[in-house]
Amino acid sequence: MSSKYKTIKYKKNKLVSADDLISIEEPLEMIVRYKENNKLIDNSISITMRTPGNDENLVIGLLFNEGIINDFTEISKVESVGDKVGQYDLQNKIRVTLNNSKNLDIKHLRRNFLTNSSCGVCGKTSIDSIEVISKKKLNSSKPIIKTSVVTKIPSILRQEQSEFSKTGGIHASALFDASGNPLVIKEDVGRHNALDKIIGYSLKNSTFDNDNQFIACSGRLSFELVQKTLMANIGLLMGVGAPTSLAIDLAKRFGMTLIGFVKSDSFNIYCGEKRILKTN
Amino acid sequence: MSSKYKTIKYKKNKLVSADDLISIEEPLEMIVRYKENNKLIDNSISITMRTPGNDENLVIGLLFNEGIINDFTEISKVESVGDKVGQYDLQNKIRVTLNNSKNLDIKHLRRNFLTNSSCGVCGKTSIDSIEVISKKKLNSSKPIIKTSVVTKIPSILRQEQSEFSKTGGIHASALFDASGNPLVIKEDVGRHNALDKIIGYSLKNSTFDNDNQFIACSGRLSFELVQKTLMANIGLLMGVGAPTSLAIDLAKRFGMTLIGFVKSDSFNIYCGEKRILKTN
Repeated sequence: MSSKYKTIKYKKNKLVSADDLISIEEPLEMIVRYKENNKLIDNSISITMRTPGNDENLVIGLLFNEGIINDFTEISKVESVGDKVGQYDLQNKIRVTLNNSKNLDIKHLRRNFLTNSSCGVCGKTSIDSIEVISKKKLNSSKPIIKTSVVTKIPSILRQEQSEFSKTGGIHASALFDASGNPLVIKEDVGRHNALDKIIGYSLKNSTFDNDNQFIACSGRLSFELVQKTLMANIGLLMGVGAPTSLAIDLAKRFGMTLIGFVKSDSFNIYCGEKRILKTN
Repeated sequence: MSSKYKTIKYKKNKLVSADDLISIEEPLEMIVRYKENNKLIDNSISITMRTPGNDENLVIGLLFNEGIINDFTEISKVESVGDKVGQYDLQNKIRVTLNNSKNLDIKHLRRNFLTNSSCGVCGKTSIDSIEVISKKKLNSSKPIIKTSVVTKIPSILRQEQSEFSKTGGIHASALFDASGNPLVIKEDVGRHNALDKIIGYSLKNSTFDNDNQFIACSGRLSFELVQKTLMANIGLLMGVGAPTSLAIDLAKRFGMTLIGFVKSDSFNIYCGEKRILKTN
């Protein structure tokens, strides 16, 4: 989602008025509704700056990546609530009704969300805390991806990024099958949001096929992106940018494949190289 | 701060082992120490993923940008505490002792920090909430920056980014004087941290000269970067990347100059063009 803004462009030593398309950034408040002692309770647990659109996928992905839900069936309803506000006339509140709240420690959850959401990482004091959350084990030999598939990802990502081509200022995450066919791509001003959106989408539509899929991101690879990929039980994450130390450490510890600086003729494998098959 | 990691590089259809320098990302916990009823109280109020180094500047900047302190004199001590941990043998906890706590609503502050820190924006439901925090008024006619100064910023930023030249994966923020001389530059895997670091540095060293300085960032311009620049009472922010809608909206509302897509021969002014002086 983008909008026209008046701009003054400096070029060839001239200042000229123009219209420019700008990526929208707006706050989204997530409210979780659950039952406690037969009473319905609404609790606001996170506010995230996001690009509007795919809000439902975003909150499903966020709840899943934070370990609050294990499955889409734990959600009975997702609905936009509240008045339409602001210049874009948007509902910036979304309410998720959970089916089962008997194990829901809402105070803990709320604090967790306040510290974790949006950045995805704030509040996680060490990578040990992730091990508690992620109970799944990656398939150590899948997916297998050819080198010729890796190098074609940047151009596919770019082609599929409809918002980026308009604004030049938005991140993307995409889920690919092992042959490099894009399955779902989502864009957002926040990298973590774009990834939450594709994970939420896959969960809702039951399209995860973990042994035969990988994730690619448009930007740098931080700790939180590796964490979200692990929660989705996907064994391979690649990005066109650089990884951080903690991203590599976490990927290594869980046996994930992490690839950075992906270009049309080169890339770097930081760990999990056995999932990469050299082709001629 | 960066560290060597073993990498497998794919290039010219070959996979070759190599060492690569990777930007360090580690959690930093901030504890605020204050007096309540003559008792010293330590309260952990935020955890941020950051590139180690300049931790003191980072927390000073963070406390200032969140409106918790108005001045460096409100801080009596900043010290690293706790054991050295992890593979980089770092103290990942820092304690800030405040002089004056009589007006400190620590519960409110803590909640605020939990929602705001790290991303800088989570928890702020609308740009209205900023107006409450920022009581300063920008000088509407200063700084005045020549177009020839704007276009030389990307190459200066790149030259001064010592970590970026090693790792290719780290953001920078810098404070410049009106003639385009870099005064202080800080790097971090988090854009918001890099900006907090230069603001903390300027505050601690009393080097702010708001009418004659501007801030430049290496990446995209989000709401939170505009917010932090406003808190520092600096009238002009530029970046080599794209702005978001909310970044422009906020800058406009406060009469700030916002410039994006800065290149060696072109840039876009989104608002506050009267601070830009065309040169031949």
